[in-house]
Amino acid sequence: MTTSGKAQDRFYSVIPAGGIGSRLWPLSRADAPKFLHDLTGSGKTLLRGTWERLEPLSGPDRIMVVTGRAHRAAVEAQIPELADLNVVLESEPRESSAAIGLAAAILHHREPDVIIGSFAADHVISDEDGFQRAVREAIAAADAGYIATIGITPTEPAIGFGYIHCDGALGIDGAPGAAKADRFVEKPSVEVAREYLADGNYLWNAGMFISRADRLLEQLGESQPELLAGLTELAEAWDTDRRGAVVDTVWPGLAKIAIDYTVAEPAAASGNLAVVPGNFDWDDVGDFAAIAKLHSGGRSSDLAILGENARVLSDASSGVVVSQTGRLISLIGVTDIVVVDTPDALLVTTSANAQRVKTVVDALKVSGRSDIL
Amino acid sequence: MTTSGKAQDRFYSVIPAGGIGSRLWPLSRADAPKFLHDLTGSGKTLLRGTWERLEPLSGPDRIMVVTGRAHRAAVEAQIPELADLNVVLESEPRESSAAIGLAAAILHHREPDVIIGSFAADHVISDEDGFQRAVREAIAAADAGYIATIGITPTEPAIGFGYIHCDGALGIDGAPGAAKADRFVEKPSVEVAREYLADGNYLWNAGMFISRADRLLEQLGESQPELLAGLTELAEAWDTDRRGAVVDTVWPGLAKIAIDYTVAEPAAASGNLAVVPGNFDWDDVGDFAAIAKLHSGGRSSDLAILGENARVLSDASSGVVVSQTGRLISLIGVTDIVVVDTPDALLVTTSANAQRVKTVVDALKVSGRSDIL
Repeated sequence: MTTSGKAQDRFYSVIPAGGIGSRLWPLSRADAPKFLHDLTGSGKTLLRGTWERLEPLSGPDRIMVVTGRAHRAAVEAQIPELADLNVVLESEPRESSAAIGLAAAILHHREPDVIIGSFAADHVISDEDGFQRAVREAIAAADAGYIATIGITPTEPAIGFGYIHCDGALGIDGAPGAAKADRFVEKPSVEVAREYLADGNYLWNAGMFISRADRLLEQLGESQPELLAGLTELAEAWDTDRRGAVVDTVWPGLAKIAIDYTVAEPAAASGNLAVVPGNFDWDDVGDFAAIAKLHSGGRSSDLAILGENARVLSDASSGVVVSQTGRLISLIGVTDIVVVDTPDALLVTTSANAQRVKTVVDALKVSGRSDIL
Repeated sequence: MTTSGKAQDRFYSVIPAGGIGSRLWPLSRADAPKFLHDLTGSGKTLLRGTWERLEPLSGPDRIMVVTGRAHRAAVEAQIPELADLNVVLESEPRESSAAIGLAAAILHHREPDVIIGSFAADHVISDEDGFQRAVREAIAAADAGYIATIGITPTEPAIGFGYIHCDGALGIDGAPGAAKADRFVEKPSVEVAREYLADGNYLWNAGMFISRADRLLEQLGESQPELLAGLTELAEAWDTDRRGAVVDTVWPGLAKIAIDYTVAEPAAASGNLAVVPGNFDWDDVGDFAAIAKLHSGGRSSDLAILGENARVLSDASSGVVVSQTGRLISLIGVTDIVVVDTPDALLVTTSANAQRVKTVVDALKVSGRSDIL
């Protein structure tokens, strides 16, 4: 166990691999969540891509994955290098404060001065060097005591992301770009997004948090003392034979709340949040419009086709086709279309309606059709 | 064998059940052609509907079906009343002159003064009384020596149908509406279709022909003497043990040509074609736009759903869904959409592109994918 040393050497990556990705239904499912899909056509799943992006930063032995029990086998198949020590299984989903907080607590218990960085399992970044440079700056900011995040420099007035407002450079050694982040703003209207883009002090919130584990837990405890107590109890039992018993009693009672509300926003409000601008491409691939865009490179006349055995006959059509069945898919004169063809469900919509996919998922839940969710 | 008597009693219906209906792919297939589908939601196939519409005119024993060998079982399942005597099987498709001409030749050989009426197996008519009234007039015109057709009174400037121009009443006993038809015109542009509608002397060509069999064969022989000779040879052998041998040698050599060119147009050109206006609803349901229209009753906001076990979740969508798989089909914000979901092929297009479906079928033929045609 290290107790001091260079910040970079004390760094540990955490990958919370939890969300299903409801807006990508019927491709993403409870039993095949978004992070287990190859949405980029790269030949690897988003989870595997995330792992490979983090490996140069922390090494293969210092990446922890927090996921549901149901996904253990799939996760391990994607990452054969993953050590048992680095697998944290949730008995049931309890949102990001509990998931990331548990990883922080376990790692802090094992290694008191550890710096952790939490990165979603299902985002897409192709400029890995740019990403790693930003993380290294964020590690320096974390070492200086800040809770750090990486804000993506906007390239367009996106309305699908939240924004971080930054207010002045912090002058941190090793983190020349780091600025004080004073507030988060929710997904804006397109008019407001245009103002943000013109303003220049608004960055996309990519949900990446880098912090000393003790600082993160301290911040969490300020707003959620009971949650912190539970996480601490879990962490103390984790590497003992009491783990199972404590998980069974403590985990189900933890508050379900996003880490944005328990850590990021309070830290921003109290001047403890540093934001490092990330000048790399990034997308959370939140819906099918994002997939279409990712594949078309901005050419709206293109038809993106996902699926190993896809057979598509397209005439004057554009958008995205996801094929999981091997059936012949014929498109005639449909533009910006989204067709998702799976064995038990078919979705037909348009890029413009991509965000509304979640309403179908909600309707299916209400009508008791969770068998196909 | 009757040799005289009331025209109505000498009437025999002929149903050529041949065409696949390429513009309705992937619903219509070589092994499941259009006439074997229920496209109206009435609970019966188009073929069965045609049979039931003709039965009051000719009785169940005087309706002949001409179809491909491959469809024999399906046809007989649809029409258990169909006598063996009234089944004419084509060893291979040879177009409507051969199909209808063979029926005419066989029936004429059996019953020299028979009047036949030929009606496609895959059209939709809901006003059966109106249809039967028009056919009775056409039978009277046929008895007077004309080759008669029924022209549908247009209700809109349709561009998907051919038109018949009529030129003056003929004053035939029992056929007060019958007029001389002097020419056929191909599917017009919408401007021309509007002129036709305003003119009032243009009727839709519904491909119905009513004639004494001897007159029809005589007309056919004028332009196609070899075809007539072949049909006569087939008819003479038909009810003997030589049928199989003669079919094998003669049928494959017959000219493939539509009856429009061998009978209808020459008869119009020589003043021998009578047209009876049909004031009933009629549709050849040629494409998915026609199906959508048939089901919506003109309300373009409607979503028509075909398929016994269809499960469709629709949000702000309209058009037509054909479901043959039982999969859940979700539509979000797609208007005038056409979705045809079959076990091995999926089609997504719009009503406006419905006529272009045939181009996909042609492309599949060229690329050797006749397995899914």
